[in-house]
Amino acid sequence: MPLQTLADAFHDELRDVLSAEKQLVKALPKIAKAASSVDLRAAFEKHLAETKTQVERVEQAFEETGKAARAKTCEAMEGLLAEAASMMEEEADPEVMDAILIGCAQKVEHYEIATYGTLCTWAKQLGYTRAYKLLKANMAEEVATDEALTGLSETVNAEANS
Amino acid sequence: MPLQTLADAFHDELRDVLSAEKQLVKALPKIAKAASSVDLRAAFEKHLAETKTQVERVEQAFEETGKAARAKTCEAMEGLLAEAASMMEEEADPEVMDAILIGCAQKVEHYEIATYGTLCTWAKQLGYTRAYKLLKANMAEEVATDEALTGLSETVNAEANS
Repeated sequence: MPLQTLADAFHDELRDVLSAEKQLVKALPKIAKAASSVDLRAAFEKHLAETKTQVERVEQAFEETGKAARAKTCEAMEGLLAEAASMMEEEADPEVMDAILIGCAQKVEHYEIATYGTLCTWAKQLGYTRAYKLLKANMAEEVATDEALTGLSETVNAEANS
Repeated sequence: MPLQTLADAFHDELRDVLSAEKQLVKALPKIAKAASSVDLRAAFEKHLAETKTQVERVEQAFEETGKAARAKTCEAMEGLLAEAASMMEEEADPEVMDAILIGCAQKVEHYEIATYGTLCTWAKQLGYTRAYKLLKANMAEEVATDEALTGLSETVNAEANS
């Protein structure tokens, strides 16, 4: 299907982020399990619950496009999670692994922040007011998660370097 | 090699970003060529020149680690660029393609912002003052590029939706 209009591009990008969030729902339990810090594990578990709700919001955001909510494999998230999986296989001290996991998770969050940034801008341009609200809500959660991880990294990095 | 210390993790992450920047040096000319807007093409070409300098800064940042500046394939950047390449193959109207290219580029920039964020935090913790300055300089350029793309997107999105 050719992408002739901004609405086509929006629909395509929505399919991409639906795949990305679904991939993350599958990956987060493994990432949480790899964490040693109780606070870090709790942060990943909290974000898993949020991500499940985000999938629902993305599905609802399809409504204004008049097209089905069908995912399209997000290669970028595949790469991000493949890299995270490689890192989790490394032989690392628990505190160092926690620092690494935060780094991996922040890359994922930034990927999503960029994607929702584009989607929100396009939704506004297209007059998709409901989609805009839903996607903005997801974006706010990604920003909050990124900030929470930065907060946790202070203790985690200090322990990794002690 | 096991990652026993934060210094090991830093070195590993530096190898990752060296690969990421080198991949981007190869990909940016194609992305610039795919742009129709003169301003957008100029922005990509400007960032190509910056990225070449960033590769040099990353290479210099290895010095304090006492290890060789050797890249380690960054799977996440491979995924991001594979996705961008897929999008460039789409049959799209020129204005819509420009909007898509900005979206792809902002994902790449955010990936790098997250990576340099982690690297700068770790460099500070490790007392690598020279590496910190070099990586902070790269990060500032990524943030500026992301902001410039947001600025360009206003005109580009409006034209894609006209």
